[in-house]
Amino acid sequence: MSTSVDHEASTYTVIFQPSGRRGRVSPDQSLLEVARDLGVELESACGGNGKCGKCRVRIESAVDDRAVGEIVSPPTDAEEQLLGPTALADGLRLACQTHARGDLRVFVPVESRRADQVVRKAAGDRTVPLDPAVKCYRVALKPPTLHDPLADAERLQAALAEQHGVTDLTFDLEALRALPGVAREAQWELFVITWQGGIAGGCIVDIRPAADPGHVLGLAVDVGTTTVAAYLVDLITGEVLATESAMNPQVAFGDDVISRLYHALHNDDGSRELQETLIAEVNNLARRAVESRGAAPEDIYDVVMVGNTAMHHLFLGIDPHSLGTAPFTPAVQGSIDAKASLLGLQFNAGCRGHILPVEAGFVGADNVAAVIAEEPYKQDEAILIVDIGTNGELVLGNRDRMVSASCATGPALEGAHIEFGMRAAPGAIERIRIDPETLDVQFKVIGLEGWSTEHPAEEIGARGICGSGIIEAAAEMAKAGVILTGGGFNPDLTHERVVLEDGRPRKFMIAKPEETAIGRAITVSLKDIRSIQLAKGALRAGAEILARTYGVEKPARVLLAGAFGSYIDKHRALEIGMLPSVEPEQVVTVGNSAGDGARFALVSVEKRREAEWVARNVEYVELATDQDFQAEYMEAMYF
Amino acid sequence: MSTSVDHEASTYTVIFQPSGRRGRVSPDQSLLEVARDLGVELESACGGNGKCGKCRVRIESAVDDRAVGEIVSPPTDAEEQLLGPTALADGLRLACQTHARGDLRVFVPVESRRADQVVRKAAGDRTVPLDPAVKCYRVALKPPTLHDPLADAERLQAALAEQHGVTDLTFDLEALRALPGVAREAQWELFVITWQGGIAGGCIVDIRPAADPGHVLGLAVDVGTTTVAAYLVDLITGEVLATESAMNPQVAFGDDVISRLYHALHNDDGSRELQETLIAEVNNLARRAVESRGAAPEDIYDVVMVGNTAMHHLFLGIDPHSLGTAPFTPAVQGSIDAKASLLGLQFNAGCRGHILPVEAGFVGADNVAAVIAEEPYKQDEAILIVDIGTNGELVLGNRDRMVSASCATGPALEGAHIEFGMRAAPGAIERIRIDPETLDVQFKVIGLEGWSTEHPAEEIGARGICGSGIIEAAAEMAKAGVILTGGGFNPDLTHERVVLEDGRPRKFMIAKPEETAIGRAITVSLKDIRSIQLAKGALRAGAEILARTYGVEKPARVLLAGAFGSYIDKHRALEIGMLPSVEPEQVVTVGNSAGDGARFALVSVEKRREAEWVARNVEYVELATDQDFQAEYMEAMYF
Repeated sequence: MSTSVDHEASTYTVIFQPSGRRGRVSPDQSLLEVARDLGVELESACGGNGKCGKCRVRIESAVDDRAVGEIVSPPTDAEEQLLGPTALADGLRLACQTHARGDLRVFVPVESRRADQVVRKAAGDRTVPLDPAVKCYRVALKPPTLHDPLADAERLQAALAEQHGVTDLTFDLEALRALPGVAREAQWELFVITWQGGIAGGCIVDIRPAADPGHVLGLAVDVGTTTVAAYLVDLITGEVLATESAMNPQVAFGDDVISRLYHALHNDDGSRELQETLIAEVNNLARRAVESRGAAPEDIYDVVMVGNTAMHHLFLGIDPHSLGTAPFTPAVQGSIDAKASLLGLQFNAGCRGHILPVEAGFVGADNVAAVIAEEPYKQDEAILIVDIGTNGELVLGNRDRMVSASCATGPALEGAHIEFGMRAAPGAIERIRIDPETLDVQFKVIGLEGWSTEHPAEEIGARGICGSGIIEAAAEMAKAGVILTGGGFNPDLTHERVVLEDGRPRKFMIAKPEETAIGRAITVSLKDIRSIQLAKGALRAGAEILARTYGVEKPARVLLAGAFGSYIDKHRALEIGMLPSVEPEQVVTVGNSAGDGARFALVSVEKRREAEWVARNVEYVELATDQDFQAEYMEAMYF
Repeated sequence: MSTSVDHEASTYTVIFQPSGRRGRVSPDQSLLEVARDLGVELESACGGNGKCGKCRVRIESAVDDRAVGEIVSPPTDAEEQLLGPTALADGLRLACQTHARGDLRVFVPVESRRADQVVRKAAGDRTVPLDPAVKCYRVALKPPTLHDPLADAERLQAALAEQHGVTDLTFDLEALRALPGVAREAQWELFVITWQGGIAGGCIVDIRPAADPGHVLGLAVDVGTTTVAAYLVDLITGEVLATESAMNPQVAFGDDVISRLYHALHNDDGSRELQETLIAEVNNLARRAVESRGAAPEDIYDVVMVGNTAMHHLFLGIDPHSLGTAPFTPAVQGSIDAKASLLGLQFNAGCRGHILPVEAGFVGADNVAAVIAEEPYKQDEAILIVDIGTNGELVLGNRDRMVSASCATGPALEGAHIEFGMRAAPGAIERIRIDPETLDVQFKVIGLEGWSTEHPAEEIGARGICGSGIIEAAAEMAKAGVILTGGGFNPDLTHERVVLEDGRPRKFMIAKPEETAIGRAITVSLKDIRSIQLAKGALRAGAEILARTYGVEKPARVLLAGAFGSYIDKHRALEIGMLPSVEPEQVVTVGNSAGDGARFALVSVEKRREAEWVARNVEYVELATDQDFQAEYMEAMYF
């Protein structure tokens, strides 16, 4: 098809408004075809078959006052039905049904322009244009005859090329199996679901009747060591339909990554066991999410997964054994596309899984996801992204360069391996104030309004201290002189809240026994303080090494990502020297960036390409072999 | 890497013999690398790691009498070990271990030249160069270190690119899962199995230790309506290791294609049932074949399947329902690549299935396979390929053009729907002579030496008549005047062998009761003769229409393909007018061309491309709608 024909006499000039694009057209082309040839964005959901009514345009004569009826073909039945007499009298027509019979102007109203749909980040204002790997098309096929006996599959491929300009699609076996039956039942009016997330071509993954296409959904999965979160997304609108999360069921095999690697390594079926238990939970979350929206797991056609390197390997069922010993090499770094069914996911048979790439042994796909969500590579200033989990992952950079590192913070900042540490759940102490004069303590407990001092002791019911509470405790204990800058207890201190062991101060009491629900005092020990020192020291030293590597004194902004980043009081984090010494207003909490990045990759193949680029182009700094790291680390442990 | 460097002073001239290729080389390139750059075919199984000893060459000075030791680098440990002192003294070296230190001549002995391996057709002399979709590489990886922590997958990809020039390979999930463990166990010396049968790139499908790579096998499967044949092929040498065949187990659902289509159509799980029963038999055949060679089903990495359109659909698990009613449209025509596991084949997890394309509703992948085995498109003369099964499939053409047709011959020529018809098995009458004077009959029985008249009647033990025997009976009965040219019995004939019904001749006795093992006479009835007339008439009329369409009076040669083609006496087939009226020496029996084509496609991606081209370029002539067909058909039924 072309916009010019041999017989000049039988062609007309068409000008599209407001774009101003123009061309000469022959009467056998519909105005929709002309619009496509000229690159005019015009909505059409039915592939130009006069079914959807979305390609309405307003016709006017380009040169004289001739009535619309004289310069275009007469209205079809479809137009009579979809537009009605008033609109038709008003010059409105369906572009797919209308052919030029004279020179004319075509106004494309706003509602007919193909929208540049965008998907928004949960926190912040960043958006991404909707361009998922799973793309759907409505096509109407001519039924085969003895004189036109082209096979169903080739007939569909030809129609996709003709009606949508989509070529080079092969068939998934399952789609091929479905095609003959669905095509005949649906009287050759089909809704075709494709996956086009690869480099070349793509696949037809499912065929549905155009009259009843149903849901086309995707799932973004963020697998944390502790928590698994799943976002159910409508792949046609980009809308997040449901969010579900649950504890990572692998905690049954160990709280931290190392104990899971140990399990995988020392049990014959260890990796498989860890994979299956994780996948079962993802299947559960997906089932809950789709059921909440009246859909089915078979409506899920695409899954994006992010996670740290160990979660990444265990999700894929790859032996994570090389991650556990030096040189800590991952099995694979690049992104992976695989049939979701091969992973054990019980979604549509044609569903794909896309696993974001990892950067290095300890900088995983979750970090890559955070980077594509925050896009430092599109910014002028050097930005530091801090994602604190069992490891602290750091990325520093801008459009010129990005450097990353992983700090072995240990689980202290998550409240683990702390004597009274607990998750950020009801009963957890999350805020603490210590009077420097009297050493009186007041604290806030999750689930309880206001400060502990506002309630009778027996109503407080504290159960432990969560990660942000630990930071508060350390900051306040340092400020009040309970601990010295080196982290040790002030040996000269005597106070009812200071617990002695062998005559030396060893613990500080935050909650008295009567203020807790556990029948005894909640204290912070020297060992706890040491854990925090190691964690914050590692993080700060890592940030300093990155700044030095990058060549900047300190970052222009610090983004705190992840759940811990949301709970933490940035002032306290700055006080105890956990973060580079920037001003508090330069520290921003950005929410679950890894989850945002997973959602972005789910709805945008461009974001997948960015992730691939990020994984290859972020320079990984191996702190363990950095000459300055130990010195920085020692210094950064001081309060 | 390049054959010229900046410092002209430090490069040398190397001339390869006998090819005469020459280039300037730097001392840091091995002679194997130089040979590859210059396109000199030089064997190397280990990827240039000094392990296989296959790249031996003889070195000579190019310009003077300098000793070998002066113009190349000293022998390495690998050379000392693999060549020994005598060969080294003789100027023999391993090209991968040797670097130039002066201008030199390199002789490549015959045994070191990379052989252009070929695979031979079972019958005839046609061969095809070995170029399977499954390609294997030996690679040696450098183990990762803290300073070189590249992931295993990317490390392998880099080594494949560097050592073999192979790029753009992705990983099957299963191969990725295997990689970390195998790489470390095998101390980074790997045997990599890839599938490169698609248009772009390819996949790594399995990883084995280089020290013990084991078998890499393929299976060519020819699914006939009656018989399933499987050829086990070594994909590294192209050798056929075993051939197994069995009855198509779908016969339990009906002898012919139509009754199986009926079963699929009228039972909810009909298609699946037919598919599973067929796949189970292919798994059986494969198991028998691999066990006979001490291999395992997991050693099978590639499967090529051919069959008529119905078998093609049922093998794939595609609802064959559109094949059963006008316009007889197949679900798909193009070739299909799918994971073999998706088809239910229990081979290696990475095994692929390649299903050859079909031409049209009744001209299937078996016909395409026969065409790529016989290659009329590479010949000057117009050749007619006749493949007789339940349908007769015809292709006529040469390098200019090919036309095809499918004739509804019915199953008579296979001995089915004939009163005493049977398969070509022991006890079947396969040759018949009728004395025109006496109407005495002598015949040959499969499993019995010589003619029936040479044995006492009770030793003959005939059980029925096979397809070729039916042709013989019709030819002899016509020649002896038992039947008239129209096919009816001569009404004036009275003879003890002529059986009357209602006073009219209706049957002719071939074997007397005492000559059979079934306790009664074996006869040929008027109905049998009519079946033969319909079959041979359809075939002949089809051939005539094809000749007319193509524009030739008759073909230069007729190739009889398939099992029936092997049994038939070509003189008799010509006598009864089943074939175009060529000379007997122009009729050639070519064996199981479909099976040969499947084997060729298994070992040659070029043959797969040819098949795709054939399926698209053979012009299918729909006889049902051809105006001349009925007239030709009527005429062709006469004897």
